[in-house]
Formats: sequence, C-alpha cells, structure tokens
Amino acid sequence: MKINNQALPMEKVFRDPVHNYIHVQHQVILDLINSREVQRLRRIKQLGTSSFTFHGAEHSRFAHSLGVYEITRQICDIFKRNYSIEKIGPDGWDDSQRLVTLCAALLHDVGHGPYSHTFEHIFNTDHEALTVAIITSPETEVFQILNRVAEGFPEKVASVITKTYPNQQVVQMISSQIDADRMDYLLRDAYFTGTEYGTFDLTRILRVIRPYRGGIAFSINGMHAVEDYIVSRYQMYVQVYFHPVSRGMEVILAHLLDRAHELFHEDNQLFEYHSQFLKPFLKGKFTLEDYLRLDDGVLNTYFSQWISEKDLILSDLARRFLDRKPLKSITIDSVDNPNLPIMRDLVEKAGFNPNYYTAINSSYDLPYDFYRPEQGRHRTQIELMEKDGSLVELSKASQLVAALAGQGQGDARFYFPKEMIQKDPTNLFEDYYQAFSSHIHNGALAK
Amino acid sequence: MKINNQALPMEKVFRDPVHNYIHVQHQVILDLINSREVQRLRRIKQLGTSSFTFHGAEHSRFAHSLGVYEITRQICDIFKRNYSIEKIGPDGWDDSQRLVTLCAALLHDVGHGPYSHTFEHIFNTDHEALTVAIITSPETEVFQILNRVAEGFPEKVASVITKTYPNQQVVQMISSQIDADRMDYLLRDAYFTGTEYGTFDLTRILRVIRPYRGGIAFSINGMHAVEDYIVSRYQMYVQVYFHPVSRGMEVILAHLLDRAHELFHEDNQLFEYHSQFLKPFLKGKFTLEDYLRLDDGVLNTYFSQWISEKDLILSDLARRFLDRKPLKSITIDSVDNPNLPIMRDLVEKAGFNPNYYTAINSSYDLPYDFYRPEQGRHRTQIELMEKDGSLVELSKASQLVAALAGQGQGDARFYFPKEMIQKDPTNLFEDYYQAFSSHIHNGALAK
Amino acid sequence: MKINNQALPMEKVFRDPVHNYIHVQHQVILDLINSREVQRLRRIKQLGTSSFTFHGAEHSRFAHSLGVYEITRQICDIFKRNYSIEKIGPDGWDDSQRLVTLCAALLHDVGHGPYSHTFEHIFNTDHEALTVAIITSPETEVFQILNRVAEGFPEKVASVITKTYPNQQVVQMISSQIDADRMDYLLRDAYFTGTEYGTFDLTRILRVIRPYRGGIAFSINGMHAVEDYIVSRYQMYVQVYFHPVSRGMEVILAHLLDRAHELFHEDNQLFEYHSQFLKPFLKGKFTLEDYLRLDDGVLNTYFSQWISEKDLILSDLARRFLDRKPLKSITIDSVDNPNLPIMRDLVEKAGFNPNYYTAINSSYDLPYDFYRPEQGRHRTQIELMEKDGSLVELSKASQLVAALAGQGQGDARFYFPKEMIQKDPTNLFEDYYQAFSSHIHNGALAK
Amino acid sequence: MKINNQALPMEKVFRDPVHNYIHVQHQVILDLINSREVQRLRRIKQLGTSSFTFHGAEHSRFAHSLGVYEITRQICDIFKRNYSIEKIGPDGWDDSQRLVTLCAALLHDVGHGPYSHTFEHIFNTDHEALTVAIITSPETEVFQILNRVAEGFPEKVASVITKTYPNQQVVQMISSQIDADRMDYLLRDAYFTGTEYGTFDLTRILRVIRPYRGGIAFSINGMHAVEDYIVSRYQMYVQVYFHPVSRGMEVILAHLLDRAHELFHEDNQLFEYHSQFLKPFLKGKFTLEDYLRLDDGVLNTYFSQWISEKDLILSDLARRFLDRKPLKSITIDSVDNPNLPIMRDLVEKAGFNPNYYTAINSSYDLPYDFYRPEQGRHRTQIELMEKDGSLVELSKASQLVAALAGQGQGDARFYFPKEMIQKDPTNLFEDYYQAFSSHIHNGALAK
Repeated sequence: MKINNQALPMEKVFRDPVHNYIHVQHQVILDLINSREVQRLRRIKQLGTSSFTFHGAEHSRFAHSLGVYEITRQICDIFKRNYSIEKIGPDGWDDSQRLVTLCAALLHDVGHGPYSHTFEHIFNTDHEALTVAIITSPETEVFQILNRVAEGFPEKVASVITKTYPNQQVVQMISSQIDADRMDYLLRDAYFTGTEYGTFDLTRILRVIRPYRGGIAFSINGMHAVEDYIVSRYQMYVQVYFHPVSRGMEVILAHLLDRAHELFHEDNQLFEYHSQFLKPFLKGKFTLEDYLRLDDGVLNTYFSQWISEKDLILSDLARRFLDRKPLKSITIDSVDNPNLPIMRDLVEKAGFNPNYYTAINSSYDLPYDFYRPEQGRHRTQIELMEKDGSLVELSKASQLVAALAGQGQGDARFYFPKEMIQKDPTNLFEDYYQAFSSHIHNGALAK
Repeated sequence: MKINNQALPMEKVFRDPVHNYIHVQHQVILDLINSREVQRLRRIKQLGTSSFTFHGAEHSRFAHSLGVYEITRQICDIFKRNYSIEKIGPDGWDDSQRLVTLCAALLHDVGHGPYSHTFEHIFNTDHEALTVAIITSPETEVFQILNRVAEGFPEKVASVITKTYPNQQVVQMISSQIDADRMDYLLRDAYFTGTEYGTFDLTRILRVIRPYRGGIAFSINGMHAVEDYIVSRYQMYVQVYFHPVSRGMEVILAHLLDRAHELFHEDNQLFEYHSQFLKPFLKGKFTLEDYLRLDDGVLNTYFSQWISEKDLILSDLARRFLDRKPLKSITIDSVDNPNLPIMRDLVEKAGFNPNYYTAINSSYDLPYDFYRPEQGRHRTQIELMEKDGSLVELSKASQLVAALAGQGQGDARFYFPKEMIQKDPTNLFEDYYQAFSSHIHNGALAK
Repeated sequence: MKINNQALPMEKVFRDPVHNYIHVQHQVILDLINSREVQRLRRIKQLGTSSFTFHGAEHSRFAHSLGVYEITRQICDIFKRNYSIEKIGPDGWDDSQRLVTLCAALLHDVGHGPYSHTFEHIFNTDHEALTVAIITSPETEVFQILNRVAEGFPEKVASVITKTYPNQQVVQMISSQIDADRMDYLLRDAYFTGTEYGTFDLTRILRVIRPYRGGIAFSINGMHAVEDYIVSRYQMYVQVYFHPVSRGMEVILAHLLDRAHELFHEDNQLFEYHSQFLKPFLKGKFTLEDYLRLDDGVLNTYFSQWISEKDLILSDLARRFLDRKPLKSITIDSVDNPNLPIMRDLVEKAGFNPNYYTAINSSYDLPYDFYRPEQGRHRTQIELMEKDGSLVELSKASQLVAALAGQGQGDARFYFPKEMIQKDPTNLFEDYYQAFSSHIHNGALAK
Repeated sequence: MKINNQALPMEKVFRDPVHNYIHVQHQVILDLINSREVQRLRRIKQLGTSSFTFHGAEHSRFAHSLGVYEITRQICDIFKRNYSIEKIGPDGWDDSQRLVTLCAALLHDVGHGPYSHTFEHIFNTDHEALTVAIITSPETEVFQILNRVAEGFPEKVASVITKTYPNQQVVQMISSQIDADRMDYLLRDAYFTGTEYGTFDLTRILRVIRPYRGGIAFSINGMHAVEDYIVSRYQMYVQVYFHPVSRGMEVILAHLLDRAHELFHEDNQLFEYHSQFLKPFLKGKFTLEDYLRLDDGVLNTYFSQWISEKDLILSDLARRFLDRKPLKSITIDSVDNPNLPIMRDLVEKAGFNPNYYTAINSSYDLPYDFYRPEQGRHRTQIELMEKDGSLVELSKASQLVAALAGQGQGDARFYFPKEMIQKDPTNLFEDYYQAFSSHIHNGALAK
C-alpha cells in the first residue's frame, strides 16, 4: 500500500479564534473538511446543554474538529523538526505517519450526534462505533476520500481511533490524558464560555512534548506546564462541564426523549406528520444514513412540534427545554439518603410526576490518573523525560498532581422543579413547598 | 403612569466572553431574558451565512442582545455618575429613563428571524415591525412582563425602537452611527470570527461619551477613539460582513427559498408531511405565533427534507446549502458590463439554470456619514464636544473620517457555479468552461 | 479628628495595561502619586534580577503601587454597594475607612529600595520600617500630603501597614494571603514576563469577596476562583520568582555588594570620586534622605564605575552583573551533601575565590497555609462563607489547596562559574572541569 | 568569503510577552544577544519620556531588538517555505541571505543612547552612525562575534543598516514603511502602554508578505491588513508618541541638558566629583567606549546630583524631571502667532526664564507616503501584488490610505510652567497668570 501524499501547492487557511489559523496542507484534508459528514458537525454544538448556562458557548463540533487537527499538525511539525527517526533513532517520529495521524485527528468526533451523551443513553447509539462506521462505510464521502489515498487507508485511520493502530505515538497524540483532543476542547471551551480557567499554556506544552519508543512524553523541565494543564482540566470540569444549571437542562432533555420514546412505544402512529428523522430511533432500527440526518436543529424542531402534542408531560418538558426552564438542584451526600424518598414524595404531592420531574445526576471525573492495572484502570499515564532519557510518571514528580491523581472530582445532585422552592402563600401546595425546603441546608440535602 | 423599578436585592450575572459579565440589576430585565421570545434568539445565529466562512462565528442573537443591554447599562451608569441633570442641568441625563432604555436595548433585535435579510426579502417580512409587534402584542410574554412595570410601558419601549421616543439621548444610545448595538456587534463578531479588525477601545469610548440636550456626544479629546471605532467598522464590513464566500452561500439560500416559494405556489400540496412551520410563509399569510416558531434549525431541518424532493433544482440547492458548496464569484465594474449576458449564457450551456445558479450581489455600506438632508440622508451624525460645550461634527475634525464619510465601501460580484472554472479535460462542457474563464482577469470580470 | 475627604470634581485616570485604567477620585491620592517619594518608585524595578531572565519584566514598583491602589479601590466600591454596614449590619463595610485604606494600598511598598532583598541583606535596611518612616516623617512630601487630610492621619496609614490598625477588613485588604498586593503582582508579573501561569480570574474573585466582622472572606460558591488564585501563586513562584538564572544573577549582585562593603571597610578612601550616594550605606550610617536617593540606575552607574577599579574580584563581578553573565547552578538535596566541599574546592583550584564565585541559594515559599499557632505560624487563613454565614477554612473545603497547604515549594541550588562546565581541551584547568562535571547528574548534585 | 552558518543543535528561546517566544537558532545570534553592547540596551528605555505618561511603557530597547529579530526570522521562514528562488525564480528569496538579515535586524538599534532624540540634539551624536561604528569597530564584542562568521561580514551587516546592501529584500525587511522594526515597536509599545490602538494583525500581514525582484510586496488580497497597519501607526503617533505630557517632559529634559552644557562651557571645573561619564560629551569629544558607558540610569543619577548644584535653573529642572513635573501646553496654529511673544513675556514677568521654561515643540509624522522624487521624498512605497504579478502602489488601491498619504499628522505646541494657569489669589503674580490664561481657548492659543 503506497500512500498518496497529495500536498497542496499552496496551503489553505481557515481563521480560527483559538489557534489564529488552521493550516491545511493536503488535498485529502481539504476534501475531508468539505465532506458532507464533516460539514454536518457545524449543526451540532460542542457543549450541548452547557450553552444554556454559558451563552457564548455556541461553538460546534466542526470548529473543535478543525482545532484538534491543527494541534496535531503542529505536533507533527515539531516532531519532524526536532525528533525525527533520522535524527534521534528509534525513539523518534516517523513522518510517513503524518497523513494517517492528521486524518484521525480531524475525524475523531465525526460520529457524534445531537446532544450526544443524553441521546446515546436513551437510544442506545455509540458515537465511537459510529465514527468508525462513517470512516469505513463505502457509502460515505469520508470513506471515498480516504480510499483515494490508498486502499485500506480508511481502516488504518479507524484503527487509530479504536487505539489498535500499532504506532503508539500516533494513538497517544489523538487519545491519551494529554492529547490534541483534550487540549483543543479545554482552550476552545474556555474561549467561548468566556471563563479563564481552561487557559493553559499551549505554546509551552508544545515546546516540551516529544516522542519516545512507547508513545508521547514531556521533558522534565516542562513539568509545571503539564501541571498547569491538569489543573485547567480540573477547573473546567468542576466549573463548566459539571455546572448544575446545565445538568438541570440535561435532565429535562433526557426525560423529554424518554417520554417520547415511551409514548411512541405505546402508539406507533404518534407524530404522524412530523418528527420523521427521529422515527428510526424511536423504533429502535436505524441506518447510518438515518443517523447522519440528525442534528441539534432537527431535534429542536421536533421539540417545538411536541409542544402542541396532547400528552401534557411531553408538551410541558418540550416547552421547558426550548424556553430554558432548568430543574433546580441540591447536592446530596449519598443516593441512600433517607430524605430522598420523602422529597420525591413531596414533589408528587405538589402535582409533578417524579419520574419526569426529579432526578439524581452524578457527575464525576478524574482530572488525572496513573496506570492502575490492579483496579482495571488502564489510563495511559503522563510520562516526564529526564535529561538522561529515563521516564518519571507525572504524579511521582508533582506534588500538585499527586493531590489530584485518582481522586474523582464532581458531585451528586437531586433535581426537582423550581416551583418546589418558591414561596407563594396563595398556592394550594404551599405546605408541601415548605416541607420540601425544610430539608435543604446551605444548598445541600440535610442528612 | 408610575414606573415600578423593581431593583433586584442582589444583582445577577451572566458570564460573557466579550464583556466578561452581563450585570442584571432589575427583575424586569431578568424576566425579559427568561421570556420565550428572547430565549428563542438562542436558536438564531447573529451572522447567518458568515459562519460558513468564519467557523467560530456561531454566536446567537441572544448573546448579542445581552451585550447591547450591558453596554447600555454601562453608559447609563457613567451618565448618572458624571452627567446627571442634577449635576450639569438640561444637557444632563435623567436617570428615570434608565429602565425604558435598558428594555429597549435588550429587545432591540427580538423580531429577527432565521437568516433574516434573505428571509425578509423572499417572504416580505420586516424584523423591525415584528420587534414592535412582539413588544406590544398582549399575547407575548415580553408584553406581559413590560406591562407589569406600568401600563403603556410596552409602547414606550417600542417607541424607542421606532425612534419616536421624545428623549433623543435614549434613542441615540440604542440607534445612531455609534450606538450600543453597533459597538456590541463589532466587538462580538470580531471575537467570534477570530479577526482583530473589529477590536476598538470600548473602555476609552465609554470614558468620552456624554449626553447633551440633543442626544449623545463625545468629548473632543476622545476623537481618536471614535476614529478607531469608525475604522473598525469599515474593516469589519469589507473583511467579514461582505466576504465573497458568505455571500456565495447567501445567494444559494435566496435561490433555494425562492425555488420553494415558486414550487409551492404551483402546487399547494407540496411538502405534505413536513415543513409545517414554513407553510404560513409559503402561503403568504402568517401570524406572530407562526413567526415565533421559526429559527435556523427549523429551516435547516426542512432543507434536509427537501434533499429528497423530486424537483432537481430544489434538491440540489438544499444539498449545496447544507454541505456548504458556495457559488464562486468575480468582481464586476458595472451591472451593464456586456460580458455578463455572455457569461450567464455559458452557464446555461453548461447545464445550469442561470436564474438559480447565477446572481449579481452588491454589498455596500457607508462606514460613516454626516447629515445630508438635501440628499435625503438623515443619519444622526457624530458630534464632538469642545471644552466650552460647542459641538463639531466628526468629519470636520478628523481627516481620517473625512476620507471615509459618505463613501460607499464594498463591491458588486457576479456569482456562478464553481464547476465553471474547474479544469477538467474529460468533461463534456470543457469548452464552455474555457470560454467562461477567458473573461476573468485578476479575479474580476474583464471589461 | 475629622477627615477631609477631598473628592475630585472629575476623576482622573492613568492607562494601565493590567487594569485598563487606574481611577483616581481623591485629591490626596493624586498628590501622593505626584509626590517625590512615590515618583522615585519609577526608578526601581518590581522584579529586580528577574528581568535578566524575562526581558519583558522591566516594570517598576510605581506601576505595581498604582495597581494595588486600583484593586483596593474596586474592592471598596463592591463592599460599599453590596455590603455596607447600613445594609448588612456589623459584618459590613464602613466606607469612612476608604481613604485610609486607599492611602495604605498606594504607599504599601514606598519604602522599597533598589534590588531590595539583596540590598537589605547586605546593608541591614528594612523596607517595611522605611515605609513607615516615609509615611510618618515630617520632612517627606508623603507625610505633608497625608497630614493635610487630618492630624494623626499619617500614623493611621502607617498602622495599617504594620497591621496594628483596629479594623481587620482594612488590614487584610492590604495584607493577607489573598490581598490586593498579591493579586496585583501576580497579574502584573504574569503580564510583563509574558507567562500565563499567573493569570487568575480577578473579576470572579472580586465578585465573591466580602467583608465580615473578622476581616475578609469569600463566598463558598467562589471557592474554585480562590483555588485558581492559589495555583497561580504556586506557578509564579516555581516558574518565575525562583527561576535559577535570576537567582544566578542575584548571587552575583550579593557578592558584588559584599565585596564593595568589605573593601570599603578596609579602605575608607575607596571610591573617592564616585559612588557618593552609596557611601552612607557602606559606612553603615544613613538618613532617610540618603535612602531616598538610591535607585536601580544609581547602583548600576556605580557598578559601571567599579569595572575600572583595581580590585579584580570587584571589577569582574561588576562586569558580570552589567553584562548578564549569571552563575550556573545545580539542585542539591541537602547543604550537608559531602560533595559540596569537594566542588567548592575544585572551583578554587580552577582559579575562582569560592567565597565570591560559589553560593548556596535556597528559595522556598508556602503557596498557602492555615493558621498554626502551635508552630508559631500566624498566617491569616483564607475563609469561605457558607450561605448561612458560617465560615470554612479554605483547605478544609478544597482538596487541591489541601495538597499545597503548608508545603514549602522551591529548591536549594549550588551556584558556580559557567566556566566549570564548559568543555575546553585547551584549557589549563580542563581536568578540574571534568572532575567537577562528574558530580552532576540530570541537573542535580549526585548524592 | 564563506559564511559560517553555525546552527545551534537545539534552538534556544526567550519568553516574550509580544511574540510569545523569541526563537534563537544560530550561535552567532546567541552570542550577539549576550554581547556587552547589546546587553547595554537593557538599560535604555524604548520610549524615553513616554513612560512618564504611560507608566507601563518601561520596556527597553533590548526587548524591542529581540522582537525585530523575531519578526525578521519569521519572515525568512515564510519566504523560504513559499517563495524561495528555487521555487519561484528571480522574484524569490535567497535563503543564504538569512544570517546577514537576522544580524542586521538584531543590531539595528544598537547605537541608541539614553533619551536618544533629545540627547542627540544637544550633544550632536548620531545613533545610526554609532550603530555602524559598534558593528564595524574591532574593539567591540559585536564586531568580534560577526567577524568570526566571515571576514567582511560586519561590514555587510552595517551596509544593510545604511541601506547600501545590494539585496533590496534584505534592506526593506529591516527598513521600509512596513518593516520588522516598525511592526515590532507598534505592537510592543501598544502592549506596554496598555493602549489597543497599535494592535494590528501581524499574523495576517505575515500571510500576505512576499518577496519580489525589487524588494518586499504584499498580496492584493491582504490589502485590508496593510491598511489596518497604517491606521495603527497613525493612531500610535497621534495618541502615544505625540502625547503632550511626554513632550512636556522631553522639553524639560532638553532644557536641563542644554543648561548643563552651557554651564560646563562656562566653567570646566563644574561637576568635579560626579557626572564623570557625561563629561566627554559636555566637552564635545568622546570615544565609542565613552558612548557605551551611557544609559538612562547614568543620566538620572547625574540629574539627582545636579539637584544639589548651586545653579537654580539646573537644580530646579533636574528636580522637575526626576519628580515628573511636566511643562503644560496649548496647541498653536503657527509659530508666527503674534500672541506667542506676549505669552513668553508674561512667563518672564512671573519669574521664569523663558529660554528654559517655555518651548515650541512640533511633532509631525507621515503615517504613509508614496515615492515623490520631485519633492525629494524617497520613501520606499508599499506595493501590492495582483494575481498576475503586477504591482499597485498602496494608496492607489486603498481610499483609506489615500486619505492619509503624504499628510503630516501631529501638532505644534507652546510649553510653559504649570504655575501660569493655576488660580491662586494670594500669589504676587496672579495678574500675570490671568492675562496669560486670557489668551487660551479650548486648549489652544487664541488667534
């Protein structure tokens, strides 16, 4: 298999607010960007319901995909200039891996759908499997473009995404605890939300990143830049990704899709004149082509239709979602807290079906962890390289990272309708409201 | 009529990437932001087809509306602190105007629909009239919230937007050649496109802005900050708003909607099972409720349906729009250039209906102009105030602005399918392609 | 004692790259800024020898003083608006404290001299005592300006700096583990060095800061912003303030001043025609007026003279300092490492007096600590306030801060001439060089 | 002559707040940076008296020199990658010119002394001639480093600075109306002053810059980026470089040095025990070594000594300079305004020697001009390149630039002591003050 490199005579650029310019230097990359499947990512928000909390965060998965590509391209340039196999031997970078790496970077998220995590959960889809399907199915434009490079090339690209590609440098550049994907989304989400927590020093990280036989490492004198990245990641999780209001909208979305799913199960004639693109999923049988028709706007359009449906729960949840009326929440120490059933009961007494108007939502993340085969945690740990070439695992060298390593960050919350905590003496249910509030102290469920 | 001020006990904030925070200090403002009609602006992009050129520019009219509100709020604060009527007499600011000003600022664009300018042109809607309708129609949440402040208050807010409100300081803060609206969109569009052209020094402008009897003026020692704003405006127009590729997408959109309109006119049964929310507009008879159902996602969803329609032009244009296949263009010196009919003819010979696959698109703007009643141009000119209180019109004091004043900036372009300029010796129409290209020199139509 | 508030009719501003504008609203503040003693701070670099490593870091103590003033002013504004005694009772802020607070903020560092820490160490001066002296000595302009406000006012301002002022809110705003001083220098030093590590979210900190009876606290929902500040502080220390190259210049400076001190002690006629302003310090007897004549330029000018002095060590060290020839260094695990005397000996054999050409330099800092009276550490700990008003010490709530609390960050280094590690086979001392290098592994002294 | 390229095995970087990193890739460049003559630029402020107005602008000529080097390096990289002679023929870039270009860029300002323009005027020095002298005099470190590259190399570098070097691409990169020097100082001065006027889009300029046979040109599609640069330049001149307060300090400095010059002329025994480094200049006979001893700190140290001198004018002006007491000013329409002698007379009557306490200061600059040989103006005009390779002079294509071309921007001002316009009824001279003020209207001299 000979790879057709197809360098562009003159590079093309796209203006990007995060990286200034995205530099495209191969015809394949340009064609992939212009493909139907990648263009579709323009219609899917990167952060889903987070934009309900951070109104600037309306950026798409398309922009993020370009960003991951660009960081990867920059890493390849640095590796080629400073650490080629020709220069430093078997620890070095083999630049004939560049094209497969760039394609994988660009296509890494191509299988994402609208409101991905919630949608997947309800309809049992899997964005990684769909990414692979888009890359390797002969009917897609993506496949056709990749296949023009060389036969078998689409499968190679897909194997990077499934991490079965033999070259670990390529795999870790796209997917590890400090990869081009994470680096782009932290910077991009920080830029568009307008928070500064996610800002770490990319230029410095790129100065200390380097290949070695087993993958990607960082010069020990760049340790503090890596720490900075880990702390940024931590901050973005606790402050942005786990924001209680966004999760209050996500809970509504999940319940809304769930309700539609159930109603459709009961009555297949439901939604006769609309919601066509969603029906394969409600039926539980869909093709790749069906999947590629979905985007945020399609779902929202159907939600807007559902407002006029006669099922009151469906209609009300659709309204709440479109008009941004999140459920409220309090932190809970444990899902076994005996007050929880009491509170659900009060919600029901106040007239809300607790299956659709309450929820437990737990969001936790490990900002960093080292390799723990004994616990079944096989994370690619971050390695620092000493002057003499020996490796040190990050949390061994950094006290700051040691403090975060393996510690889940986040919280568990109980969600309920805002009405439950609004004082309104004229309301029939005021007594239930008061009883409900009596269990809350400092924003948490009393023990 | 007594206005109920409703200050919040504790201000609320929204994180904003441009202004850092949006500060909300009145219950009315919070309620307006949470209203259905304002929340709907989240689903309408601020820049329409520009995001096809600048992929970061996916921000919504919602974010811009908050931004206009915030700049207005800051101006009110400055006016109150330094230039209240109590302090400086009849040239001063009357802070009882604050609430009507803030409401008008927030609601200024509430009547915008999806892809506003193109949509308006095809379906004969008018976003300013619709803004007024939303503010003054008893069925909207916006009206109900405003009406709780005081009876007649919605009409007062609307009159600021129609510029019939008696207090010129209020009117000009929202709408003049250097108003909160323009200041926010220049900064915001620059931020999200990732260009720096639109960046002017807002802090400095806010230091030199001041009220006077006749409206808004700027201290003469801030002249260069005002110049800087005018030049930024010019740069954003020529570099972003008039970008040929975005206009190449706009042309496709216009032709697509036009085609749908015509087809529906011929056959009212078209689109039987979908495109419901668009039908009132295709029929030419719509209610405010109909209008409020539209957004970018709704149109895109219908375009996606249209791909499967049997009309080939409708289907092809829908595909080109969703997959971002802009028409190409060249500049033309005059719409009377005798080569234009020749080129349209070649497009037709190559198999494209020129009514749907070619277009003349002219985009011009005046970065600044002074008041020219004799030419029917009644722009509110920008006034600078000398130390002794006398006023000087901006272009009288600034040579730089004088150079731009009254000069339309932009260009006229002829649009056509990309296929016409691609070399492809195997193509049947290659001769037409060559003939077509022979009329183009340095990106312009030969004279 | 009645305080004369002296509000300016129109505020004055100074452009500032960090805070955009410094807003001056009182005549006293303007007069203090224009005083001789404060203007002198323009001639003293904020970061001393750090600018030899970070060439952008040439900002002065004057700029920093304005910055501390500005942050303090903003805090006073926030406290007055949201937490005045009138509004929230005895936990609240008494705005009659504003002027004393602002003056103390501006004057906090007025007693600093050139290359402060090194100079103090050699000449036994004390910048805090000198700050108090400048504020309370009748001959200074600063005293005269303050005394016009009210009799006894200078002493009040001084007592804020010595932390004996009764109002703890005032004291902690200027001096605590998260005060206006630290907040300004972290942001300012990050801006001028061009690093991003020091960037924390000041706007967000200012949104959550609040007074209480015992001083300053932070709303619990702002905990992550406080964490972010602590981590920034940590990063600035380990990456900027403790940079080995800056310390390599500091060591030269200390040895140079030391040498001059000794030589002068031996021969009082030394430096007959120059170095006048330094003589009182060489003699060990100086007045406040003498002290106020010193600045970075004065010392550098004398160093330039010393290059022509006949003492070779003095002349060589002066040359190395002015031409930026830092000593090199390696980390050491312990000052008792038995290899240290060996290395000093090799330095001596290679022709360098080890008293002047080697040094042990240890730089450690506590990014944060809580109150530990039992260990004699009386740091004002950072308090978070729950919704119900109860306080939680920061490291109790934040796992991240707990990891840093009480842990000294930094390292100990052994400094020596660069010549010792340069390969040069033609050099007489090459054997010593090789022996020297054999003790170094991965930038550290072998154990 | 064979040039010894001396690439570094691993590039070295310097953190820079404007360009993020300065990348050093040749041993020669590293050695030049470490040379005595270049290190000396750390002790000379880039903007002289401007830091009295913009307190952040304390950056040195050293930082600027690195910045000019870095931009030049980036241009060389772009030229090599896209426009090498090998690729595009005789219009292309010959990369063997790189080293001479980089050295010239770095050393371009090496002959500057303290408060350059004022100093030159009084003491008749010439920084360009001194730059050439430093580069070509065998006693300097700079010469020795350059001469190691190849014999005659220092002279080649010097000829770039005197513009006699044959390759116009090299010359124009360092010195033309849009060169690396101007690009760096606009960005750097904007960054350190904290203004935004000087911010133009360097990345975009670097995307459109290209070589041609006759020098440097810009792709026509980058015209707006070039316009943006011209406008930034204009704004920096009118808002920063020509700021009336900085000029008020410059006037004091000029008068102070003038006074010292005159006094020394009268009495050669003046300054017996100090001011040694200045004496060669006071005497009018200095060596290169003398010149290299001067810096801002040296002058300031002597000014501080002069405060104690018995000449009252010298002492008072020295005090005013160190304590930042600028002369005040008004604009004048013409130096022949008949009121000027009257005002000077009033200044004299109020007790100030008008030769030392008044001044006319005119500051004008051409933001851009085209080549006008008939007027003796031989500026290298900015050329835009069409797709077909033809050139268009900038102001022919840009209406905005046409408005600025050849138009001097700036003003003429009359300077006088602040005392003349302060109301003080108890003052003996109050009548003169009132008479003086009566000639001023709106900050200008009445006609």
